[in-house]
Amino acid sequence: MVSKRYFSDNAAAVHPKVMEAMMAANHVDTAYDGDAISQSLDAAFSDLFETPAEVVWVATGTVANSIILAHFVRPWQAVLCHEEAHIEVDECGAPAFYAGGAKLMTLGGAGAKISAEGLQAKLAGIRQDVHQIQPAAISITNASEYGQSWSPSEVGAIAEVARRHRLKLHMDGARFANAVAHQGCSPADVTWRAGVDALSFGFTKNGAMTAEAMVFFGDSGGAGVRELKKRGGHLLSKGRFVAAQIQAMLEDDLWLQNARASNRGAACIAAAAGDRLYYPVEANEIFLRLTAQEAAILRTQGFDFYDWGQDLARLVTSWDQDERAVAELAAAIAAL
Amino acid sequence: MVSKRYFSDNAAAVHPKVMEAMMAANHVDTAYDGDAISQSLDAAFSDLFETPAEVVWVATGTVANSIILAHFVRPWQAVLCHEEAHIEVDECGAPAFYAGGAKLMTLGGAGAKISAEGLQAKLAGIRQDVHQIQPAAISITNASEYGQSWSPSEVGAIAEVARRHRLKLHMDGARFANAVAHQGCSPADVTWRAGVDALSFGFTKNGAMTAEAMVFFGDSGGAGVRELKKRGGHLLSKGRFVAAQIQAMLEDDLWLQNARASNRGAACIAAAAGDRLYYPVEANEIFLRLTAQEAAILRTQGFDFYDWGQDLARLVTSWDQDERAVAELAAAIAAL
Amino acid sequence: MVSKRYFSDNAAAVHPKVMEAMMAANHVDTAYDGDAISQSLDAAFSDLFETPAEVVWVATGTVANSIILAHFVRPWQAVLCHEEAHIEVDECGAPAFYAGGAKLMTLGGAGAKISAEGLQAKLAGIRQDVHQIQPAAISITNASEYGQSWSPSEVGAIAEVARRHRLKLHMDGARFANAVAHQGCSPADVTWRAGVDALSFGFTKNGAMTAEAMVFFGDSGGAGVRELKKRGGHLLSKGRFVAAQIQAMLEDDLWLQNARASNRGAACIAAAAGDRLYYPVEANEIFLRLTAQEAAILRTQGFDFYDWGQDLARLVTSWDQDERAVAELAAAIAAL
Amino acid sequence: MVSKRYFSDNAAAVHPKVMEAMMAANHVDTAYDGDAISQSLDAAFSDLFETPAEVVWVATGTVANSIILAHFVRPWQAVLCHEEAHIEVDECGAPAFYAGGAKLMTLGGAGAKISAEGLQAKLAGIRQDVHQIQPAAISITNASEYGQSWSPSEVGAIAEVARRHRLKLHMDGARFANAVAHQGCSPADVTWRAGVDALSFGFTKNGAMTAEAMVFFGDSGGAGVRELKKRGGHLLSKGRFVAAQIQAMLEDDLWLQNARASNRGAACIAAAAGDRLYYPVEANEIFLRLTAQEAAILRTQGFDFYDWGQDLARLVTSWDQDERAVAELAAAIAAL
Repeated sequence: MVSKRYFSDNAAAVHPKVMEAMMAANHVDTAYDGDAISQSLDAAFSDLFETPAEVVWVATGTVANSIILAHFVRPWQAVLCHEEAHIEVDECGAPAFYAGGAKLMTLGGAGAKISAEGLQAKLAGIRQDVHQIQPAAISITNASEYGQSWSPSEVGAIAEVARRHRLKLHMDGARFANAVAHQGCSPADVTWRAGVDALSFGFTKNGAMTAEAMVFFGDSGGAGVRELKKRGGHLLSKGRFVAAQIQAMLEDDLWLQNARASNRGAACIAAAAGDRLYYPVEANEIFLRLTAQEAAILRTQGFDFYDWGQDLARLVTSWDQDERAVAELAAAIAAL
Repeated sequence: MVSKRYFSDNAAAVHPKVMEAMMAANHVDTAYDGDAISQSLDAAFSDLFETPAEVVWVATGTVANSIILAHFVRPWQAVLCHEEAHIEVDECGAPAFYAGGAKLMTLGGAGAKISAEGLQAKLAGIRQDVHQIQPAAISITNASEYGQSWSPSEVGAIAEVARRHRLKLHMDGARFANAVAHQGCSPADVTWRAGVDALSFGFTKNGAMTAEAMVFFGDSGGAGVRELKKRGGHLLSKGRFVAAQIQAMLEDDLWLQNARASNRGAACIAAAAGDRLYYPVEANEIFLRLTAQEAAILRTQGFDFYDWGQDLARLVTSWDQDERAVAELAAAIAAL
Repeated sequence: MVSKRYFSDNAAAVHPKVMEAMMAANHVDTAYDGDAISQSLDAAFSDLFETPAEVVWVATGTVANSIILAHFVRPWQAVLCHEEAHIEVDECGAPAFYAGGAKLMTLGGAGAKISAEGLQAKLAGIRQDVHQIQPAAISITNASEYGQSWSPSEVGAIAEVARRHRLKLHMDGARFANAVAHQGCSPADVTWRAGVDALSFGFTKNGAMTAEAMVFFGDSGGAGVRELKKRGGHLLSKGRFVAAQIQAMLEDDLWLQNARASNRGAACIAAAAGDRLYYPVEANEIFLRLTAQEAAILRTQGFDFYDWGQDLARLVTSWDQDERAVAELAAAIAAL
Repeated sequence: MVSKRYFSDNAAAVHPKVMEAMMAANHVDTAYDGDAISQSLDAAFSDLFETPAEVVWVATGTVANSIILAHFVRPWQAVLCHEEAHIEVDECGAPAFYAGGAKLMTLGGAGAKISAEGLQAKLAGIRQDVHQIQPAAISITNASEYGQSWSPSEVGAIAEVARRHRLKLHMDGARFANAVAHQGCSPADVTWRAGVDALSFGFTKNGAMTAEAMVFFGDSGGAGVRELKKRGGHLLSKGRFVAAQIQAMLEDDLWLQNARASNRGAACIAAAAGDRLYYPVEANEIFLRLTAQEAAILRTQGFDFYDWGQDLARLVTSWDQDERAVAELAAAIAAL
């Protein structure tokens, strides 16, 4: 059956190569990431990012974000982020939980991206005394909640502020693959070379089953990270099955191929949408101006997606979206 | 290759039926436990336990224990447990983390099982004022850290103390299947009928990949449990793959068949061990008196296992342990 | 020496009657609030508020707010408050600390007061699922951060929203006395009769040394409150010295007399300030439009106060502010 | 009236000089420890301890202990202490609360003092992996819960273990003055010179009202301590009244005079008690073997104290204990 559902890439099928890798890992009998697959991943990510990287993996993006942020801030400090960031809006307070009650301090910004200027203004408004919570980290999302990707120079501008204020810089990359695919840059350029300290590199939305990598650049990882993971109940005795997913996703750049596939779907719909686009499509999310009536018309044709407030709809394409189904949807939108 | 490793059941292979069920779940496209497999589990567990049960699943036993205990106690309260319990010794403080700093209060007891008398004495020693932490729950482990299983009446004696002191009763059942298989009782008899409020029902050690069910009896679950799960980063967007594992484990009592298989292996070794047994074998763990020299002899024959302190070794059998390899090990032990 | 400093009422002298009461309490030799003074306070507050009240006292307003909110929300829930509320801006995250990481969700509103309409809109925007943090309490500040007091009907409008959404209503009354003195209402009218569940009743800014009362109406207190206090390190062995302060503040309505005195000072300055007033003066805080030059002129005359952003100054009067000094300041402002 | 009550020194009267100092501080009008008295304390403690010391003060010993320990360990680490330590038994979990759920790991030891050997054995039993909580600090109590004081060399032996394992060493000195008075050593000898990193120096039990100093030696204090204090709601706007108490206690060694006075009372009772002494009296606590009948006899003569388990009583003398009343009690005990 060809899916006409565009709710989210987070429920999409697992890629066959990932499934195969998991089955192949069944014969391993070493517990707790002590196996050869697990042990190979630091090197694999170091290759991909062209720099020594420390990699720790977990099953969800929520906990990947939370552990990195808990590692970067103390309980009485804060993380600066966009007011519509996933960590602020959609994680039931997980970052505050992992970070012992640390605060998320929010700011605005077009397309759910914060700006260096906005950041500066926010920081200028914080009195440096013991009464006010002091930020110790910044978190940006790439691609953002509205599917906006970051260029290396945009990241660099944020990192420059971070450096001046001695703040760590985290990138939530639940859709990092889609963002990199859109930018056409190297993973290194938009992360550590631009000043990112640690990345939540998401695979689950992009063809894996339950696999997210925390990638620490430089000496930003180290003591504490694995304790946070274990203490959160995220150390799997059969962790090899997550490592195997990630290994498969990195092999032959499957992560990039999958991201390009879902981006192509989104671009096809975007091309048909024209003025209906609320944001430029820079990854695999499309925000469409649709009246309730127009949305209903599409739904009667079998398509489905989330309403996103008044006269707005969100559609997300997945790596396995059928090209003909996408073309049909594009045509249906054009015909509205 | 036939495994001669007896380190732990926690790294054993995933049962083929579980693997198949996961592959079959790949075509589902609904996120966050909204799918039909996920929705079917309350009923499946209610059938198995002969009573309405509320079931929430996670990937590790550590977080299953932690969420249940965090649900049962407030941050300024305590959980009573054995001083060698997994929650006390091997979870890096996860229960305290989830429960906002709540305390584990420990007591002794033979075979890592607490006794009703020991519990009474411990409770009698706690002043009921605001200076001392007051317990709000008891946690027992079945089978215990030393592979000792609980009879329904033993559980009932603990539950009677719990009732008198208005404490919730949790059972850590990382090896619940092995314990039930050994006792030959019904799952209901040794849990809610005996007074257990909630059970961590482990599948990972028994043929699943990453699947543990929190089973809440009566009205012991409810508001807060799912928030704790999400906030801990344990809500999987593709949760169907965990639900599918559990569904497969319940079908045709695969959980019981697997447990019986590993128990058989342990019984075979136990029969050969005779006086070497440090504890009676009541599940799939064998604690053997072995000198360093004797241990070395077994290892030169290719067997491996954990040393467990001075002149003691721990061997754990798994559902997939090869019968001939077990027989060889039994013979090797008998020949020492 | 007559003080010409208007920084804050939080450093003002302790009233002589409070000092005397503390000295008188020195002969008591019972620890931990077991003494007669401590035992008398429930009745004293019940009289004052014309309803049975449960009272627990602590040394700071920060912890009074934090314990009440921690008592009202679970760690995965939220408190709704104004974005400039003291709990949000000036307590270094204490409410989140006490409440296990619970979130403060903020909204705007003129004069640092939230409105029922704003509250409704905020609540309407929160999806009721496990991904988004759900609020469980509302906190309002009376007088607000800009010295605005609440009428009973304004509080009632907030409480009506609280009731509909099953949220607890907390009032931060660091300057409750000043607000009540300004409104001329009874303490009951603006609290429980209007729907407030618990009040932080501040005495420290109003003539006490270190004394804040948490006043719980109805059954909003109870189990947990004293544990939070002890666990926070706020149970004093010589708690009688705080109880004595509060007893002295309640006797002959000293709290009201002191508040009227500081309000009179503020009113005198307000009368002179005319159009310079940024907010109407409804307690003992005055927000004045002052250029940097004008501020400098006042300072050369010996007056001092906080700058409050661009061309704005905050002045706070205390219960012991000298009337002539206030008159001089009023004259100096009028002469600008 | 002459007190015949020996329950605890924690409810004793405030020394007149402390009271006077508090009254004198009333004219200060600077908030939040910005006043001259507050500013003078680092120097005063540096003099007393013959080394640069950083001092932060709070109102209770519970929070002094908790902040120091929270400063020394991360949430996933542990503090090693005696199983009868105040932090373990009598603080309602405050150290775990402040330290984000960190664990207290307990060991035994005569007279509620841990030994270097016991400590070594405990440490040897902790596997160094991510499953087991790793200790990061040791806390000892001087005088101990049974009134036993530490000699500099005893402290040094603990500190030597601490150094080898890179653990911080905290001393809970709720009755530090009594211990020092008994040992006749300098405060420096039994703290930093012996290897203590930070001391909770108690004044409340020794003539102050609500004053405990956290004394950090070397670079053991610094960033985070004041945030923990503020976040716990312990930063007083009128903090000068606590600073004034401490200043008065240090002046002319009032702390030592008071401690000597209460120790004298205890020594007098001890001399009369002979074989009844359960522990040698090394501070101001006396543990007496008393049958229920004997205890009743003393009580009919107007004396009172705590029963401390079967046939044991605890008596505590205070700085203001009347010498004749003590002599009468001594005589009454001798006459039993």
